[in-house]
Amino acid sequence: MNRASKDRIQEWIEGMAQFNATPEFGTTRILFTKPELENRKYVREEMMNLGLDVHEDAIGNIYAVRKGTDSSLPPVWTGSHIDTVPNAGNYDGMAGVVCGLEAVRLFNEVGAVHKRDICVIVYTSEEPTRFGLSCLGSRAMSGDMSLEHTRKIKDNSGRSLYDKLTELGYDVDLDYDDIRRDKGDVYASVELHIEQNRNLEQAGKTIGVVRKICAPSIYNAEITGVQSHAGGTDMGARRDAFAALSEMELALEKMAQECESEYNTATIGHVEVIPNAVNVIPGKVRFSVDIRDCNWDSKQKLIHQMQTEFEQIASRRNVILNMEEENNDMPLSCDDAICSLIENSCEKFDLENMDMISGPYHDSLFVGKFAPTAMIFVPSHNGISHSPDEYTSYEDLASGADVLADVLLKLANE
Amino acid sequence: MNRASKDRIQEWIEGMAQFNATPEFGTTRILFTKPELENRKYVREEMMNLGLDVHEDAIGNIYAVRKGTDSSLPPVWTGSHIDTVPNAGNYDGMAGVVCGLEAVRLFNEVGAVHKRDICVIVYTSEEPTRFGLSCLGSRAMSGDMSLEHTRKIKDNSGRSLYDKLTELGYDVDLDYDDIRRDKGDVYASVELHIEQNRNLEQAGKTIGVVRKICAPSIYNAEITGVQSHAGGTDMGARRDAFAALSEMELALEKMAQECESEYNTATIGHVEVIPNAVNVIPGKVRFSVDIRDCNWDSKQKLIHQMQTEFEQIASRRNVILNMEEENNDMPLSCDDAICSLIENSCEKFDLENMDMISGPYHDSLFVGKFAPTAMIFVPSHNGISHSPDEYTSYEDLASGADVLADVLLKLANE
Repeated sequence: MNRASKDRIQEWIEGMAQFNATPEFGTTRILFTKPELENRKYVREEMMNLGLDVHEDAIGNIYAVRKGTDSSLPPVWTGSHIDTVPNAGNYDGMAGVVCGLEAVRLFNEVGAVHKRDICVIVYTSEEPTRFGLSCLGSRAMSGDMSLEHTRKIKDNSGRSLYDKLTELGYDVDLDYDDIRRDKGDVYASVELHIEQNRNLEQAGKTIGVVRKICAPSIYNAEITGVQSHAGGTDMGARRDAFAALSEMELALEKMAQECESEYNTATIGHVEVIPNAVNVIPGKVRFSVDIRDCNWDSKQKLIHQMQTEFEQIASRRNVILNMEEENNDMPLSCDDAICSLIENSCEKFDLENMDMISGPYHDSLFVGKFAPTAMIFVPSHNGISHSPDEYTSYEDLASGADVLADVLLKLANE
Repeated sequence: MNRASKDRIQEWIEGMAQFNATPEFGTTRILFTKPELENRKYVREEMMNLGLDVHEDAIGNIYAVRKGTDSSLPPVWTGSHIDTVPNAGNYDGMAGVVCGLEAVRLFNEVGAVHKRDICVIVYTSEEPTRFGLSCLGSRAMSGDMSLEHTRKIKDNSGRSLYDKLTELGYDVDLDYDDIRRDKGDVYASVELHIEQNRNLEQAGKTIGVVRKICAPSIYNAEITGVQSHAGGTDMGARRDAFAALSEMELALEKMAQECESEYNTATIGHVEVIPNAVNVIPGKVRFSVDIRDCNWDSKQKLIHQMQTEFEQIASRRNVILNMEEENNDMPLSCDDAICSLIENSCEKFDLENMDMISGPYHDSLFVGKFAPTAMIFVPSHNGISHSPDEYTSYEDLASGADVLADVLLKLANE
């Protein structure tokens, strides 16, 4: 088998980058918006050009199958996502889809034969941008999002995922159950992804072998204070919702820094101040909390601590706090056997590698619930992601594609 | 002289309330919209019915003059405004105009004679709703808004104040300089206003003698950190713009609480988080700071302290802070002699009174730059203002009108 082509990878990365709502500042490609729908079409066409059998399920996950000699065996999966957060880069998600396609192209070049089907998947909406919930496609696969749930989650315009899917022609009522995968349905899954941190770059290594994936817990919260005149209300008489949020943010930051987990984070990324006028004390704020941890127990401990301290702050400031849990997911330990195959392939291609914990989570977190799963990381320059400055070299992507292709072929012949 | 009539005051308050863009939810009467223009017409007619000489200047300030025996002497002024914020009440501004008219009616009833002219003024646009800048009429009088400035400030449709005035037939180019008043032009000014706070009600008093008016200093600021993935970026490696703002908010709150001024406030009311997504560390925040103080020196000290501490926070967190001053206005000390006259009148009518500092500012802040100035406050129920729930009893308004009439007549005979 030949080595992966930097040029071909660049062509596909740039091919996808043209579908973008904010060409003046990074890449914005939000689920089922025009650029995302156009990119789906482009990817399906590229898959068909490679001779793959392409189909979709009722939530829009795209499957592109390279037939094995015995399609009755559970298949081998790879893939990632093609949606982005606002003003993102060109690699988060797309890298995994493109390297999956490049692996298939390498197989085609030498007419590789394998027992099991190899399937390149585009998972629907890994990013939570549109419906406030991440990994919609893989969550539906693992049974973590019911049909009923698709009616409940809504975008900013108030439209539910269910309604949007129906509008696009997916027969959600009829086909939703077919999305679901059980243990044994998939032989193995390997996802390539950019690291989104600087560990590989700092260590001067090319391949990360992911041993654990942190899982998120997301909370949507609202603080209600008293809206009042900025000049007319004594400092001592205020019930300022934004001041309360500020205290919560600093408390959360401190408790996350002091947490004793191997790896954990806590972030307030979404904030809405009401009425948001210069001369009015904020009467209300709405905000999100995003907590990650590679260890379930230490995460639950931090969540409990957060809830206790937030309530204390609200009570001391005489404001009302309402917090709702959006999700509280279980971290994943990757499959040791697949990790060993990745290490062997690195040795074969003379690529330096290291074990890693993934702070960000991926569709693999949910796929790992029904299939032996592992991930291959490639370096992110300066660790930057979810930003127009996100960058991974085509050379590193090609190295990742070499390892991915080698591992997929071994797994498909097991 | 008779005592003021509750019924007459109610008639005028309700007369004005009929001009309202949102009759289903409070009162909305924005500068030079249909309801505001209709209310101007109504007020001018009521002024003429009282036998007053009515004229306007080039920015739409309405002057209604009751002639004294020696019109060559500098006149005595009273008045307030008739525009509102959106979904406001019926008293903020209107109370001062109505009580001015009621004072004139009382003078007419007994054929009162006075040396100096007494002038009831409706100041143009005390509220900043339409052009983003408050006290347009009185700012023009004190020289704090140039003709050039009227071309720069624009409403949401992009039309400048200059263009709107011209469209309405005001000859701005020819007459703008005539708006300007210098020291000595006006003998004294007394404005009656609702308190917009609950001090009078809590103390069970009817009249507030305003000793000082706080002036605002407004800053627009931006913090630039590094936008990055909420899961992928170690707590120790973050340059989170929102965490920096939270620390600044708490620092500002603390320094405002500990400030040794008689009365001061500090508020962050406007906050914009970018990109404002659940799973992205904020790379940028934009925010406003609104600082009020009744003392110029302590305000400048607090502003300096704020700038120093904000810079330290930004530096420690490795983010960039940019702050721009929008305005930094001078607080007003009211005229002691007029305040004594107000106290004497309260004694005469057996009305309990107390000294006050006004946190909100008023047209009197600008009139005080060229004339000895004082303000009479009447109670606001529950301290609520800028709200449909704003309420002041007609009894309290009548008491305020009694004091106002008595003080105006004394001043006009000095």
